[in-house]
Amino acid sequence: MIAKLQEYIDHCKEIEKLKNAVVLFSWDLKTKTPKNNCENMADSLTYFSTELFKKSTSKEHEKLVEELLEEENFKNLPDYWQESLLKEKKNIEKSKRLPVEFYEEYVKSATMSEIAWEEAKRKSDFSLFEPHLQKMIDVVKKKAKYMEPNKDVYDTLLDMYEEGITKEDIDRVFTEVKTAIVPLIRKIEEREKEDLSILDRKYNIDEQKHLQDFLLEYMGFDFESGTVGESEHPFTLGFNKNDIRVTNHYTEDDVIDSIFSAIHEGGHAIFEQNVADEYRYTNFSSIDLLGLHESQSRLYENVLGRRKSFWLPIYSKVQEIVKELKYVPLDKFVSGINNVQCSYIRVRADELTYCLHIILRYEIEREIFINKARAKDIPMLWKNKCKELLGIEPRNDQEGVLQDMHWSDGSFGYFPTYLLGSIYDGMILESMEKELGNVDTLLAEGRIKEITKWLNTNIHKHGSRYTSKEVLKRLGYENIETKQIIKYFYDKYDK
Amino acid sequence: MIAKLQEYIDHCKEIEKLKNAVVLFSWDLKTKTPKNNCENMADSLTYFSTELFKKSTSKEHEKLVEELLEEENFKNLPDYWQESLLKEKKNIEKSKRLPVEFYEEYVKSATMSEIAWEEAKRKSDFSLFEPHLQKMIDVVKKKAKYMEPNKDVYDTLLDMYEEGITKEDIDRVFTEVKTAIVPLIRKIEEREKEDLSILDRKYNIDEQKHLQDFLLEYMGFDFESGTVGESEHPFTLGFNKNDIRVTNHYTEDDVIDSIFSAIHEGGHAIFEQNVADEYRYTNFSSIDLLGLHESQSRLYENVLGRRKSFWLPIYSKVQEIVKELKYVPLDKFVSGINNVQCSYIRVRADELTYCLHIILRYEIEREIFINKARAKDIPMLWKNKCKELLGIEPRNDQEGVLQDMHWSDGSFGYFPTYLLGSIYDGMILESMEKELGNVDTLLAEGRIKEITKWLNTNIHKHGSRYTSKEVLKRLGYENIETKQIIKYFYDKYDK
Repeated sequence: MIAKLQEYIDHCKEIEKLKNAVVLFSWDLKTKTPKNNCENMADSLTYFSTELFKKSTSKEHEKLVEELLEEENFKNLPDYWQESLLKEKKNIEKSKRLPVEFYEEYVKSATMSEIAWEEAKRKSDFSLFEPHLQKMIDVVKKKAKYMEPNKDVYDTLLDMYEEGITKEDIDRVFTEVKTAIVPLIRKIEEREKEDLSILDRKYNIDEQKHLQDFLLEYMGFDFESGTVGESEHPFTLGFNKNDIRVTNHYTEDDVIDSIFSAIHEGGHAIFEQNVADEYRYTNFSSIDLLGLHESQSRLYENVLGRRKSFWLPIYSKVQEIVKELKYVPLDKFVSGINNVQCSYIRVRADELTYCLHIILRYEIEREIFINKARAKDIPMLWKNKCKELLGIEPRNDQEGVLQDMHWSDGSFGYFPTYLLGSIYDGMILESMEKELGNVDTLLAEGRIKEITKWLNTNIHKHGSRYTSKEVLKRLGYENIETKQIIKYFYDKYDK
Repeated sequence: MIAKLQEYIDHCKEIEKLKNAVVLFSWDLKTKTPKNNCENMADSLTYFSTELFKKSTSKEHEKLVEELLEEENFKNLPDYWQESLLKEKKNIEKSKRLPVEFYEEYVKSATMSEIAWEEAKRKSDFSLFEPHLQKMIDVVKKKAKYMEPNKDVYDTLLDMYEEGITKEDIDRVFTEVKTAIVPLIRKIEEREKEDLSILDRKYNIDEQKHLQDFLLEYMGFDFESGTVGESEHPFTLGFNKNDIRVTNHYTEDDVIDSIFSAIHEGGHAIFEQNVADEYRYTNFSSIDLLGLHESQSRLYENVLGRRKSFWLPIYSKVQEIVKELKYVPLDKFVSGINNVQCSYIRVRADELTYCLHIILRYEIEREIFINKARAKDIPMLWKNKCKELLGIEPRNDQEGVLQDMHWSDGSFGYFPTYLLGSIYDGMILESMEKELGNVDTLLAEGRIKEITKWLNTNIHKHGSRYTSKEVLKRLGYENIETKQIIKYFYDKYDK
């Protein structure tokens, strides 16, 4: 049995080499590859992705899994190994249903669609993207049908990004959130705006980078098991728990953006870095539950990072690092990072109106996958929903339907995970405060690492062994509840 | 014929994907991989190196080459394609003689030896490294004998790093250089030393990085076909002419080191970036002639970069970028970068005593490969030669025999290429001035790009199509001459 398991692990190590190549080419393309070599490197990425797909769905690999499952004393393996192998079997079965030629067609369509999206966004012209978007809708539907022939397509997609979540779940919780926060936002909009022009300064970019290092260190990011890079859009990417990488982007005009991107990606990274060691070659070692992932990044970014208490013990150090902040008093800084205002661009939205940006995208995805809307219908849907939810109408495609890259590579079903993460955060915060006491007290005393430790114990170490619903259950919640996050928003903004 | 050639190129493109992986893992390991993932990434590197070796020496590849060579109208191919295929055939024949198991043993020994060297250097204890060094001597001898059974081992090694060069060549030119410069150095040592303590300052590291970008741009480095990184030791590495990467290292105490590393690696990179486009899938596209390579890096670093005229048009800009340099007048800066003094460490040596560091290593390599010295004898050989050539004796292994990593991975025969490069530079400078006029005038007028253009035309564009001897012949030199570089040294230092 042990020998058999070792054989399986050895094969996983072989697969890992291809995965390392895929991750590394992705990393390099986004952070380092110079313009004139991008196409060549992208070809290599496609090649190794396909090799990885082939090897991880190969007969050889499947056989190793099946032999282990059929071993008489399978039950003697530690629980987590049993669970991992069962999950692996399910994954192989699903992936196997994808013909290799379809997989290649899918990867190629996505690559071309991403390129078309970039150009369309640059030129603010949806028509350049439309045929590619329609193609992606079609291949994604096909993919979902291949993988789960008997399941509703949109449920398959949701499950792909957040296992165990259905559109019924999302309909319910998103409606609750929407009903609660739209009136709150309208109320805030009627208030007199605070003058925040003191934040309009030039912030040295080298200093912003040093601040990122400081903040990551402060939160508990381990630089011996991770590193930082620079890219157009911030992201987190990992080889394994010993090598989790975050990126950031910088502009002189905006220090808040790079600060909160740093904290957000740091939250993702800390999650991955703290999965239990024994899960290394199991299916739980890297986290494919994106809602749970967002709950961690958004907890650090919003629930913790936007409190005055977070900044109290470190603001003078922060001002030492980014010198221009010496002209910005702490109270103005805190107002600046909590400035609620309906706006066009999701990634620049405050934590409250952000929820509506996600609901907008979810409602459009429903139109596509349930009511059969086509690519050509989406700009109009976008305009109408934007007007309805945010009270504003985008002036062009760039600040409307073309702003995000997610749909261009076929990541339908992904957007809802952002808001799910925030909803989980309401419960996680409540649960944490029950044990650790008031979060503001901890933060104000510079004891953020105690919070990180609580998260390590209750969430991070499990990796993706438990679905989000199971994780919440372990914290005492039978169901996904929204009243906690709604209370959080009202406590904070309805004063 | 064209179809056959296309088939060959397609196969080269397949091989290129593995090469890209090898280069990328090497790059990442040296510039980004966090400590806790190094072993895992090194395993992936070994795996892809072996796959690359297998594929580029495979029967399939060999067959494609042979079929092309046997085509009736082979002679209709452009000359460079004919030459490339003949070179390829020779390379495959040589590599094929290496059994795959031996290749794997070799790679593994080198990896372990590098690790042992690092520890030994850190602890300044040669005994930790000795068995590995002996192993590397043994496997390198074996490798050379496999590849060229009928050739002298050391000639095979020299040829590996600089095709067409023999130990007779090197004996002659190194003796000429040694005989000429040792007395010059002794003379300089007797002069009164200039007070250069004004250079002892703290130089901001972010500013040093910005200076590197400025200098690379100024020399003609193309940032759309290259990028920069940070590593313990500076190096240049390339995927293809569209993606050549240089690294640098920085310390607050020393701005000169990072400046001249930037210029040196920039010289290597500009060479690679300017190989003719049509050589892309030939054997000439990346330069395996290391002496010729060093001639370019050392031309920029020493022959151009250490002149006052190089700095005249840009020094005020340089002082704007690195603010501490505002306290260092140009004349002091120029004295600082031309401070001849015998010292222990090769990479910190001035351009003149540097020659002796190389001759020392060459003479020891002769002892190993011709007179059968063993690893255990090397520290004593080092001490004696150091005393004889530089007039000083290292106080420990760290500043003596353990200072360089080259021997740890078996790169015997590599060191001579550094000095060969400088010797070529004497002739290249003479030849260039005949056409372009006085280099000081060009530099002082900020016309360095004209020099780069001349190098592009006369050297860079050929890639490794011509050996160094052939390149020099095209410049009018029947043989490698040392009198030009000796004249350069005397003109500069014997005043």
